Amino acid sequence: MRYPVMIGASALLFAAPVLAEEGMWMPGQTPALGDKLKAAGLELSPDDLGNLQAAPLNAIVSLGGCSASFVSPDGLVASNHHCVYGSIQYNSKPGQDYLTDGFFAKTNGDELPAAPGSRIFVIEDLRDVTTAMNKGITSRLSGLDRFNRLESNRKMLIAACEQQANRRCDVRPYFGGQTYYLQQQLEIKDVRLVYAPAGGTGNFGGETDNWQWPRHTGDFGFYRAYVAPDGASLPYAKENVPYKPKSWLKIAQTPLKDGDFVMVAGFPGVTQRHWTAAEVRHNFDQVYAIDQQLRADYSSAIEKAIAGNADAEIKYASILKGSDNYKKKLLGEIAGADAIDLMGRKARDDAAFRAWVAADAARTAQYGAALTSLDGLVGESNQARVDNLRLATLGRAQLLSAAQILYRWSKEREKPDAQREPGYQDRDRLGIRERLTQVERRFDAGVDKQLLQQALGEYAKVSADKRNAPLEARIASIGIDRLYADTMLGDTAQRIAWMDKPASEFEASSDPFLQLAVAAYPGTMADQDKTKDRAGKLQAARAQVMAGQLAFAQSQGRTLFPDANGSLRFTYGKVTGKQRDGLIWTPFTTAEGLVAKHTGRGEFDAPDLVIEKLKARDFGSYADATLGTLPINYLSTVDITNGNSGSATLNSKGEFVGLAFDGTLDGVVSDWSYDAGINRTIHVDSRYMLWTMAKIDGAGRLLKEMGVNW
Amino acid sequence: MRYPVMIGASALLFAAPVLAEEGMWMPGQTPALGDKLKAAGLELSPDDLGNLQAAPLNAIVSLGGCSASFVSPDGLVASNHHCVYGSIQYNSKPGQDYLTDGFFAKTNGDELPAAPGSRIFVIEDLRDVTTAMNKGITSRLSGLDRFNRLESNRKMLIAACEQQANRRCDVRPYFGGQTYYLQQQLEIKDVRLVYAPAGGTGNFGGETDNWQWPRHTGDFGFYRAYVAPDGASLPYAKENVPYKPKSWLKIAQTPLKDGDFVMVAGFPGVTQRHWTAAEVRHNFDQVYAIDQQLRADYSSAIEKAIAGNADAEIKYASILKGSDNYKKKLLGEIAGADAIDLMGRKARDDAAFRAWVAADAARTAQYGAALTSLDGLVGESNQARVDNLRLATLGRAQLLSAAQILYRWSKEREKPDAQREPGYQDRDRLGIRERLTQVERRFDAGVDKQLLQQALGEYAKVSADKRNAPLEARIASIGIDRLYADTMLGDTAQRIAWMDKPASEFEASSDPFLQLAVAAYPGTMADQDKTKDRAGKLQAARAQVMAGQLAFAQSQGRTLFPDANGSLRFTYGKVTGKQRDGLIWTPFTTAEGLVAKHTGRGEFDAPDLVIEKLKARDFGSYADATLGTLPINYLSTVDITNGNSGSATLNSKGEFVGLAFDGTLDGVVSDWSYDAGINRTIHVDSRYMLWTMAKIDGAGRLLKEMGVNW
Repeated sequence: MRYPVMIGASALLFAAPVLAEEGMWMPGQTPALGDKLKAAGLELSPDDLGNLQAAPLNAIVSLGGCSASFVSPDGLVASNHHCVYGSIQYNSKPGQDYLTDGFFAKTNGDELPAAPGSRIFVIEDLRDVTTAMNKGITSRLSGLDRFNRLESNRKMLIAACEQQANRRCDVRPYFGGQTYYLQQQLEIKDVRLVYAPAGGTGNFGGETDNWQWPRHTGDFGFYRAYVAPDGASLPYAKENVPYKPKSWLKIAQTPLKDGDFVMVAGFPGVTQRHWTAAEVRHNFDQVYAIDQQLRADYSSAIEKAIAGNADAEIKYASILKGSDNYKKKLLGEIAGADAIDLMGRKARDDAAFRAWVAADAARTAQYGAALTSLDGLVGESNQARVDNLRLATLGRAQLLSAAQILYRWSKEREKPDAQREPGYQDRDRLGIRERLTQVERRFDAGVDKQLLQQALGEYAKVSADKRNAPLEARIASIGIDRLYADTMLGDTAQRIAWMDKPASEFEASSDPFLQLAVAAYPGTMADQDKTKDRAGKLQAARAQVMAGQLAFAQSQGRTLFPDANGSLRFTYGKVTGKQRDGLIWTPFTTAEGLVAKHTGRGEFDAPDLVIEKLKARDFGSYADATLGTLPINYLSTVDITNGNSGSATLNSKGEFVGLAFDGTLDGVVSDWSYDAGINRTIHVDSRYMLWTMAKIDGAGRLLKEMGVNW
Repeated sequence: MRYPVMIGASALLFAAPVLAEEGMWMPGQTPALGDKLKAAGLELSPDDLGNLQAAPLNAIVSLGGCSASFVSPDGLVASNHHCVYGSIQYNSKPGQDYLTDGFFAKTNGDELPAAPGSRIFVIEDLRDVTTAMNKGITSRLSGLDRFNRLESNRKMLIAACEQQANRRCDVRPYFGGQTYYLQQQLEIKDVRLVYAPAGGTGNFGGETDNWQWPRHTGDFGFYRAYVAPDGASLPYAKENVPYKPKSWLKIAQTPLKDGDFVMVAGFPGVTQRHWTAAEVRHNFDQVYAIDQQLRADYSSAIEKAIAGNADAEIKYASILKGSDNYKKKLLGEIAGADAIDLMGRKARDDAAFRAWVAADAARTAQYGAALTSLDGLVGESNQARVDNLRLATLGRAQLLSAAQILYRWSKEREKPDAQREPGYQDRDRLGIRERLTQVERRFDAGVDKQLLQQALGEYAKVSADKRNAPLEARIASIGIDRLYADTMLGDTAQRIAWMDKPASEFEASSDPFLQLAVAAYPGTMADQDKTKDRAGKLQAARAQVMAGQLAFAQSQGRTLFPDANGSLRFTYGKVTGKQRDGLIWTPFTTAEGLVAKHTGRGEFDAPDLVIEKLKARDFGSYADATLGTLPINYLSTVDITNGNSGSATLNSKGEFVGLAFDGTLDGVVSDWSYDAGINRTIHVDSRYMLWTMAKIDGAGRLLKEMGVNW
């Protein structure tokens, strides 16, 4: 029982917030940040950090949804245990429970194909395509025409980029479409599972510890990228060889300590930091309130539908877990918004910007109309968001979704590829196929039927003019029971077979779900056009307002970063705990805490060997001299969100010191507003990873490959 | 962001547990504890501490369910806000919302009658009556005869004690009936509400912060005891005068600080520290598992039944809150049991004791048979507990309970007072009347009906031989709807009127609930005899085993304390935070933390004046020099449980330094096993109380009365 006497420390709570390391920065922003990065402790040159053609940034890869990094010259990729979880599960079967026991391939030949659809995307380029995107865009275009023109420009850019074999390209808007960048990635299709520690390490603490500190989770796992002997990216084949990345991260040997500079590079998904005050308020007051209720009802409906059905319980476990997880996050966001007075912050920021615009006639001329337009569009859009929450519940019926995707696919294929809706182009064929295949692992007709029934109740709450009358009429005339009794879409082969049939066959089909899809189609298309029209107008207004925000920031010497959009970003900060009145989070957890938390049951059941060796203080060379023990997890101020899971954490020299894997529930409101006094990222310490590899799982061959010889 | 670098500190986590201050001690145990008390820092002499006729102990009072203390010569009583909550609520009405705004009586004449049934019990004596209790007890008695004999001895002792006017006496078993003490209390019936801070102070943090640290709750309020001008205890009368207690606590002026000795005296309710390993295991594996399910179903049933019925929502709010609170505590106990390996601890303790018994022929002769008997009886008793959980759900139907109480009351009144069942003697008349009256505030026929229906479903799950067949048959023949349509018991006056009617009138009554009560009666009596028979046998075995446990402890130089049983106890420890890997709780929260937590909404909405003055650092003389600010709440290792709420916290000189008001969820397993590394009591700091009185609520007259002139 020792802790500091907090002499005067609590007075800090009234003081100005700690210097914020907020920012999910684009690689190209390093020049603007140079001094700040150096002041924060970066030992690389900012130019080197920003260079996409060299380490560390070009060692950073995406798994699609998770981030990861190359850590050896032979294509070894480190990410989170929860990011490779699907592949561990895919390779497990009765009597071979890798989820519980872990998996380690003793040789390259023992490495297992990852789950279908697994990819490693290697970043190659990120270039400004704003001019090309805005070609043909004028203020006279309708919202829909504007949207379609942008979409068509985007598809042309992507198609041109994907002329190069095995490239996956995307164009994303930054600052609400004020600029656009094209991100080009090499798509590696032969991904293999190399190593995952036991579930009692990789998921230690489970749901109980999720989003909590203190934490003791060994949330790491390894893939390897494979390509054809000639270097071409091909799907799994026995003769494929390890991919040789241009760069890989060096594992740090310098001990990481409290206060150290750290940075994280990866692919953060979505944030809403640049939303207007009205959007944020509506989101919390309306959207989240309804969303919470819908989620709770959904979870209850699933629980009720699967009760006593062991097969369905397994099939819906991950959907249910996802839904519960989302509910928990929503609660955290709502509580966090209250705690940081999010509405007040947004209102003040908004008012300051508007005052700056209003204070100058030229600025008023430049941004005033866009602001007025944005406000009106936000109002419309807000109402649509609320409606869509309820309308979208129909999508929980998996066969209805499958039928709609299939029919849409048939309709889109009537057009030249370049004119098709994104998501329905030739480049999307494999993705659609995989999505349709996955249904079989999480579909039970009886459960799906009950969920559809519940969803129809929610759907009916939306005003009639927003609903799809032909769809409703068709459901009523067929009847829910017959929908499921007569459909063939529950069979995976049948679902897949429909991918190659023309629209006319759908229209002639007697399959009830296909009939629903055909009936719904015209209404869906009309709705989509309305949405696109609004999106086009919103883009015009928001891009202009964001230009104003950028000018406003510049006038104050601030550098803005765009909201997360799934593209490569880096964020920097420092290793640090935090303090609240009565409470201190220290920055590192240790072996002793893991042992103390271990109960040998349920979610706190580390492998016996782990406990034995930790108790024996058999830390090898991985202990930290300052801590006097083996570090397990640590906290930092780096600014991350969903999508950053698995991101490499780098020290001031750009060396690998661990993996980001979680935040804390009191900080999930950071998607809306970051606060360095509150937000903390949780990392697994590289030394705990190395220790587990060396002492527990006999993964010496990987250590050697990673250049770890200490 | 400052915290200590934990050099080597985490190694402590492997070390032996911190010297435990465990113990809910009887006043008479002070001689045995003398050296330990002095070593811990007590500055009073242990003899003075143990003296029931002087301060501090005879300033400690019970409110029945809560603890409290005299803090002035004029009968002013300090307790928790949540202990006087019922009286604040009772005196509130539309336009006079004391729950939100608080209440302060500017003069004695403004003090308001507390809620009906409010009592202040002043401790007068606590004496060993083991010999008198065991009069006529022999090993040849059947369990039932033994039980009845003990009960009759107990009633005689109580009756003799209550010959003295206005005394409330009770005899409770200690160490499972190894000894018995009679506790004599003066019953003060005119209790008045003097002062309660605003709800935003007294309940700051609400359910969110309940059982949590850090905490910032001003959980205090004041009653005053009134008696007739001649000193007799009478119910409320205008001419009554403040009671002059023999002693009252002096308010400490010496600042309390980290590491200081503190003690708490009060009336802890129930603990299970001396249960056998088998009982504990059964409780967690079976009883709690079922109890959780039953609670969850009960809460859901209430929520469903009251939905959309504003009146019912109010009526059932406290039942629902209680049920949810209980569920939360159960979850905490279950998680805590896992965290401290409760089953392992109990198994080891049990084995050590049994080994000690087995190691010696004389000890085996003395305790062996009792141990064997206890084990068998525990098995029987365990099964009965599981059954009773379900059977007891019928008691949730309030009119059925009322009818059963009324009929039982009529049957018991056929006997001489001394031969009646405890709870149905003349001394219990007022309590029964109050209980029957209270129904009106939390009863809605429609809701009660649904709850009865649900309870019948649970009841039916118990094997037929355990159920009450005539009761079930009568319910079936009457039908649930008619039960509620035809009864008059929903009317309070009618319920009360039945208190004076003979059993024959019940038997002739056409009121359907009274018919149920009459039908159920013979079965209930037969069950009760079985339960008493088992209880008699259990008492015999357990008392003997506890004698062995006491001898075992003595052989090791340990002093045992009896499980909590609602009688006066003291517990001592020290002000201290705690440390887990990655986490430190500092021992004091402060004004700055309160301000930081204040959102102005919902459960975190302190009065404006509080925030204003705290921000202005207008702490008067109540700030702590070491902390540099006003302390709000603090943590200590004292060992408390339910019933201790409102207990005075005393410093080493026996002076008042605050009130105990809560524990933390990770420590609620302390009812089963205390761990000084985990268990913490949360106190409201007296300096925050005084500050609120002086700076916020203008309660100077009370400060003066309490001798506070700084």
